[in-house]
Amino acid sequence: MKVAIAQLNYTIGDFEGNSEKIIQQINSAKINGADLVVFSELSVTGYYPHDLLEKKEFIQKAEVAVSKIATNCIGIAAIIGAPRINESDKGKQLYNSAFFLAEGKIKSVHNKTLLPTYDIFDEYRHFEPNNEFEIVEYKGEKIAVTICEDLWDELPTANEFGKDKLYQTSPMEELSKFNPDFVVNLSASPFSYNQEGWRKNVLINKAKRYKVPIFYVNQVGAQTELIFDGGSVFIDEKGEIKKELKYFEEDSLIIDTADTSEKILQRKAETIEKIHDALVLGIRDYFQKMGFKKATLGLSGGIDSAVTVVLAVRALGAENVRVLLMPSKYSSDHSVNDAIELAKNLKIRYDIVNIQAAVDKFEQELAPLFEGTVADVTEENIQARARGVYVMAISNKFGYILLNTTNKSESAVGYGTLYGDMNGGIAVLGDVYKMDVFKLSRFMNKNGEVIPENTIVKPPSAELRPDQKDTDSLPAYEDLDEILFDYIEMNKSPNEIIEKGFDEQVVNRVIRMVNMNEYKRFQAAPILRVSSKAFGFGRKMPLVAKY
Amino acid sequence: MKVAIAQLNYTIGDFEGNSEKIIQQINSAKINGADLVVFSELSVTGYYPHDLLEKKEFIQKAEVAVSKIATNCIGIAAIIGAPRINESDKGKQLYNSAFFLAEGKIKSVHNKTLLPTYDIFDEYRHFEPNNEFEIVEYKGEKIAVTICEDLWDELPTANEFGKDKLYQTSPMEELSKFNPDFVVNLSASPFSYNQEGWRKNVLINKAKRYKVPIFYVNQVGAQTELIFDGGSVFIDEKGEIKKELKYFEEDSLIIDTADTSEKILQRKAETIEKIHDALVLGIRDYFQKMGFKKATLGLSGGIDSAVTVVLAVRALGAENVRVLLMPSKYSSDHSVNDAIELAKNLKIRYDIVNIQAAVDKFEQELAPLFEGTVADVTEENIQARARGVYVMAISNKFGYILLNTTNKSESAVGYGTLYGDMNGGIAVLGDVYKMDVFKLSRFMNKNGEVIPENTIVKPPSAELRPDQKDTDSLPAYEDLDEILFDYIEMNKSPNEIIEKGFDEQVVNRVIRMVNMNEYKRFQAAPILRVSSKAFGFGRKMPLVAKY
Repeated sequence: MKVAIAQLNYTIGDFEGNSEKIIQQINSAKINGADLVVFSELSVTGYYPHDLLEKKEFIQKAEVAVSKIATNCIGIAAIIGAPRINESDKGKQLYNSAFFLAEGKIKSVHNKTLLPTYDIFDEYRHFEPNNEFEIVEYKGEKIAVTICEDLWDELPTANEFGKDKLYQTSPMEELSKFNPDFVVNLSASPFSYNQEGWRKNVLINKAKRYKVPIFYVNQVGAQTELIFDGGSVFIDEKGEIKKELKYFEEDSLIIDTADTSEKILQRKAETIEKIHDALVLGIRDYFQKMGFKKATLGLSGGIDSAVTVVLAVRALGAENVRVLLMPSKYSSDHSVNDAIELAKNLKIRYDIVNIQAAVDKFEQELAPLFEGTVADVTEENIQARARGVYVMAISNKFGYILLNTTNKSESAVGYGTLYGDMNGGIAVLGDVYKMDVFKLSRFMNKNGEVIPENTIVKPPSAELRPDQKDTDSLPAYEDLDEILFDYIEMNKSPNEIIEKGFDEQVVNRVIRMVNMNEYKRFQAAPILRVSSKAFGFGRKMPLVAKY
Repeated sequence: MKVAIAQLNYTIGDFEGNSEKIIQQINSAKINGADLVVFSELSVTGYYPHDLLEKKEFIQKAEVAVSKIATNCIGIAAIIGAPRINESDKGKQLYNSAFFLAEGKIKSVHNKTLLPTYDIFDEYRHFEPNNEFEIVEYKGEKIAVTICEDLWDELPTANEFGKDKLYQTSPMEELSKFNPDFVVNLSASPFSYNQEGWRKNVLINKAKRYKVPIFYVNQVGAQTELIFDGGSVFIDEKGEIKKELKYFEEDSLIIDTADTSEKILQRKAETIEKIHDALVLGIRDYFQKMGFKKATLGLSGGIDSAVTVVLAVRALGAENVRVLLMPSKYSSDHSVNDAIELAKNLKIRYDIVNIQAAVDKFEQELAPLFEGTVADVTEENIQARARGVYVMAISNKFGYILLNTTNKSESAVGYGTLYGDMNGGIAVLGDVYKMDVFKLSRFMNKNGEVIPENTIVKPPSAELRPDQKDTDSLPAYEDLDEILFDYIEMNKSPNEIIEKGFDEQVVNRVIRMVNMNEYKRFQAAPILRVSSKAFGFGRKMPLVAKY
């Protein structure tokens, strides 16, 4: 049997656009001799529609789209993902389903059994889990249809509670009783650089254990914070990856199950390249799917805004990016020159505005109220907020979306000004630790200097007071980032981190800073997620709490 | 048997403080002859700890607290709520449990069966559902222990998908097989003004159906956005409410099951009074539990900031509230005078700062960049953001937390400036529609004018350009609020709202405004929730989507 796997980039709720993409793929697969095309999870709606799933209208539109796609399945079959109403009088109102389409109609429907609710997943909010298992018989082959998490009944490693089985059921254990000829898995697996190997291992283990080939079809493209990386694969019954689709791009392939000997694999990229590509895709899709074209940001001469603007230019084109340079009396000449040099390297428009006059007015007006006080973070924040007013003015006047440049290390410890440098429509580096921001800058300069060397090598500083350095108030970034990674991504306790050899006071202070700054992150821009635990809706901490 | 019900105000993660409160109640109940004291759901941790439940340390601290409380149960029994590790090798790592404590130890543990995941609830993220049912036998009585949602297997009304049963199991159906003498229900039910009757009806129906008395113990107090209203009740086997605890306050009562004839009920308050009391409690607890005392805000002379400041004074005391008046050239004299009058009525400190000088500097500096453009929302936003800089400066310099004054109607349609008037630590009126803000103002003036009449009667205006009125760009608030309520709280489709008689264009425009402004609300302050559907984590919409 010739099975096409189609890894496409969907827009949430764009039933017309998504259906059209799906139908085009079905038609071209048919022309190229495929018997069956498999799409990704919730392909009709895009993953994940969240509470749009509570709107009956939305579900009805999905039903109409599925029926329309079905009418295009003549002489070819397709498996697509969409929500479906649970007709029973009990349970949640929907199933997360895979529709097997052939002969112009819906031939069978297969519901998702394992509904993830950890990290960024929230499927149990909307869906009832499946508990009935059936197989598809088509052209003499028996096909086991699974949806994403259905193959994840065993985690690759146990969590800190010592558990590797989060569910009571194993769909593959049930489906294997039918002796399927192959398994298809409709997925929506977001990219995270520190769990790269997991996904393939899970699939390989299932193929080996049940001695069955697996077609794994992932979504590609960004949905606000979440970046789906594609990388769909065909794994044979020995657990060998025989075909692999592109990463961070739409792609499709027809695989003949009768002869899978030829290997089609992708070049192995370094982690930092993957993060780079993920962020470029994240920016590009945020803008395209929102219907925006142009981005702006404040260029300080520092590393974070430098890396952000390079990513923006790569995502949107130099003609769509303009920046503001907003030096203050504490900015070094170097900073301004570095920023100008970078803007020139990138061939983007830059303007210089002076923030001092407005800052002075604020301070003059506040002087009678501040009498008897000493300068502190208040005055630093006024500078940051004045800059925020300028970049937002450019954004409002000319329709440029402001990119936020805060990195994950800063965001974690609350090193940023609310309503100032924390402003932005999307936070490009909010899930990238400072040390990785440096790696990104080196990666960007690989084929010639884009970011001025001085921006990379000078000690990081917010330049909000004379001779300020980040290390005045924070540990060295090497240490800070490791402590943060252990606490946030690895969910380690302070004691476990101290046992690694870090200073107790430093660890406790860093963790206190993380915990105390939930309130700032609550109001932060959405963050492009590249790790296994980003700030945002995958990490919900109470704001008011003692811990 | 003498059963005490204890409705207390917990702080999330404050194991020491929460345990102390619980132990004090156990001791005083014992002195007063009680046999058993029942506390609310997750009383040991506070409801709801969110992803703190993923930290092993946190769970271990809860275990220690439960054991410590148990040692205080000599000559008296208690039922408390806490998380507990699921020792099975399958399933989520925790149960949401009720611990029956007697003779100085844990005698039995009862796990929650029905785990809500709708609206603000997210329990399936952390907990495994129970499927084993047991009864407690104590002093010759059989006690059925249930936790909150366990009694909600049938909703009072069907949802838009025509379902009134969200779960597969009915815990009371199982527990009734043991013929319990009474039911205890440990709850954490947040207040919502438009679902007031639901809770009592659900309890009454269960008592009647199973002919069994119910002790319902609710949490009281605010946890950031969520406001728990208390109002614990004892319902007899005929479904009659015989005892009712206070609303929005800690309270407890000993009930002798042998003689429940005497009725103890609370005065029936009007809805607007309940909203008022809920918001006062919401502010007070936010500050107390955060360890803050003082609040500030910008007083414009308009109704929203007026109502907010009265609530703040009632929650924190006049000595802890100071305000800024920040008129611009578009502010009417009336506005300034009304604001001053209100500040004087409340005996709070007020200062006047002139925003024009800073605004002028921004505009001068931007003039070369803005050449050839006309004044638009950009200039309005600069004013709003300059005000934001001033109030945040007071906040930063003197440790006053900024209260946000945006109402729900504005928040819904995106009528507010990000990083300007949308600033704040907590949004006091973010779940109160404009028409209810007016009602609150009338309620506040019931016993004498606090808010100047002129503030209430003048046409609402943002005063960001000459002679601006809200109705220039929005429908009348009577209509707007009804359309919004139907769309947001009732989840009606545009067509259903149009069918009620509203103008099609108006409805579509309002709904488009709601949908287009998710990005603003994403970065908004947390909102004190008083309705069944507040903006915030109980309503998750994708930012990038077509719908």
